[in-house]
Amino acid sequence: MTDALGPDAVIGILGGGQLGRMLSVAAARLGLRTHVFDPGANPPAGDVAHAVTTASYNDDAALAAFADSVDVITYEFENIPTSALDVIESRCPIRPGREALRISQDRLIEKTWLTGLGLTTAPFADITDAASLRAALTQIGTPAILKTRRFGYDGKGQVRIDDAGQADDAFAQMAGAPAILEGFVSFDREVSVIVARGLDGSVAAFDPGENVHAQGILRTTTVPARLSAAQRTDAVLLAGRIARALDYVGVLGVELFVTAQGLVVNEIAPRVHNSGHWTQNGCVIDQFEQHIRAVAGWPLGDGRRHADVVMENLIGDDVARLPDLARQSDTAIHLYGKAEVKAGRKMGHVNRIIRS
Amino acid sequence: MTDALGPDAVIGILGGGQLGRMLSVAAARLGLRTHVFDPGANPPAGDVAHAVTTASYNDDAALAAFADSVDVITYEFENIPTSALDVIESRCPIRPGREALRISQDRLIEKTWLTGLGLTTAPFADITDAASLRAALTQIGTPAILKTRRFGYDGKGQVRIDDAGQADDAFAQMAGAPAILEGFVSFDREVSVIVARGLDGSVAAFDPGENVHAQGILRTTTVPARLSAAQRTDAVLLAGRIARALDYVGVLGVELFVTAQGLVVNEIAPRVHNSGHWTQNGCVIDQFEQHIRAVAGWPLGDGRRHADVVMENLIGDDVARLPDLARQSDTAIHLYGKAEVKAGRKMGHVNRIIRS
Repeated sequence: MTDALGPDAVIGILGGGQLGRMLSVAAARLGLRTHVFDPGANPPAGDVAHAVTTASYNDDAALAAFADSVDVITYEFENIPTSALDVIESRCPIRPGREALRISQDRLIEKTWLTGLGLTTAPFADITDAASLRAALTQIGTPAILKTRRFGYDGKGQVRIDDAGQADDAFAQMAGAPAILEGFVSFDREVSVIVARGLDGSVAAFDPGENVHAQGILRTTTVPARLSAAQRTDAVLLAGRIARALDYVGVLGVELFVTAQGLVVNEIAPRVHNSGHWTQNGCVIDQFEQHIRAVAGWPLGDGRRHADVVMENLIGDDVARLPDLARQSDTAIHLYGKAEVKAGRKMGHVNRIIRS
Repeated sequence: MTDALGPDAVIGILGGGQLGRMLSVAAARLGLRTHVFDPGANPPAGDVAHAVTTASYNDDAALAAFADSVDVITYEFENIPTSALDVIESRCPIRPGREALRISQDRLIEKTWLTGLGLTTAPFADITDAASLRAALTQIGTPAILKTRRFGYDGKGQVRIDDAGQADDAFAQMAGAPAILEGFVSFDREVSVIVARGLDGSVAAFDPGENVHAQGILRTTTVPARLSAAQRTDAVLLAGRIARALDYVGVLGVELFVTAQGLVVNEIAPRVHNSGHWTQNGCVIDQFEQHIRAVAGWPLGDGRRHADVVMENLIGDDVARLPDLARQSDTAIHLYGKAEVKAGRKMGHVNRIIRS
């Protein structure tokens, strides 16, 4: 632990949503302090952070002061403006590093990079105009999904194309944003691997979780996932390979499709990931602490799982079920402190321990 | 959950040490905010609380403003001045209620109350002067311990008497403070039960833990404790009986001596307790969340244990072992964010999961 941050250290976190909130709690457990930077007032992470800066990602002075006040900077989301990263990078280490952000901020770059690493992704094509979309549809076929290359999440910025005749209309919906066409992958199930790489280069993975989405939003993650021993090993090795190729420090989420032809990489997220929330109640060291350990230069936990868990997101009105959930045995409730309920808004999650 | 506090609610906590810190984290997990009141600057709980008031317990204006800003008040220690309680009680509910504080703040009142409930304690006598101490020593015998009736913790304010001839010297060491003489109990082991009672009167207990002390400070707690099924049931029923008799709301720690003649109550603590820290890694809902659930009017967790755990306190220089501890498998580290190491100071603890 030569380079490890000690009890006086402060970890800066870009983004004060629920991921930043749970990262702050994990840091506190290790005796470390956090300073959250977020453009919005009263961000969820602010309740449990030692300090909060409320400022825009365009506010260079605020970014500089933030960077000067912390020992290392990490983040809870990948769409941080490049200009903001430029300001802070000269003042403070950023972990995970910028290469992971550069790649994961752009779907086209990400898929190109992944296939360059010898991994399989959905078929994809760069879309620059309506003509290139029509050509790509001929090659990839339908159904396919047209997505903005940047700034999409939870199914936003996506149009499904079932017929080549919808091409012009779909392209218009991108409103001029650079786009990518992705073919559908016929998969048996979707799993994700939460992998971590330490400052010392050591790698540790959590057991793959099996994900169920609805309307583009994760609903449940179940561990163990229904995978053969060989698939499980493949999934973990693949995630470790990505982390090493990125010279990564921190926790990385890798979403995979399980197909008859093998594992297909859906996407990677250079941060703690919703599909890793089950680790809070299934592992001695959860993904949030694992991430803090990595960026703070501590040894990683080994990722061992001590319980079967089903994680369920509480989205929008799902929180109305709280009185019932609070009475259920073996059910851990995690709320994000968001007062206002909105449709599609992640309000919290529950982890259910499944006893054999 | 009719009376349950929702996501806009704030829980006030008197005392910002490590117990207040871990209570704040538990409250955040349930989407609730905390406001910590502590006389010292930068209390450990301040890192994870939404608000902090730094003021003396004699500052009536600060106490009143604090009480007006929160929805319910709880505390992490029992020695809160009565005058402070008087100020806040008219403004905000205090949970657990004042009866538990009145009894547990004074060893003589506590032991008298416990024996009145039909429970067994160590033999004891009220000591008002040197003559009453000499008389009590004749009755109780030696070795015995002379203790201040109030404000003792971790072995402070105590003098061991091995010979009746030490009586005058021992009494002088009390410096005029009201005192109690306690006889020694010959016990096989010491256990504690962490019990909770909800606002609705429901009671839930965690599995008894077995404690090892050194120099008056808790070193380790191990679950399961070495108890027969009958002893385990007795211990839990006894703790529940105390909670009910106090019309208690919150988590209560009950320390017991296991003797050949049955269970002897050592002391009760009207708060979360060091010997319940193992629940953080052994239960879905730990003692901190259980306490928050109780004082916030939520349903209690059922206290079920999913793992065997050994909790070890990190006291003073023990934190120098951190680099080694951080590398150990199945070892959860909990640090309190105290920068300065002092001999005898509780710096953190570890929970080790024991796999069968």
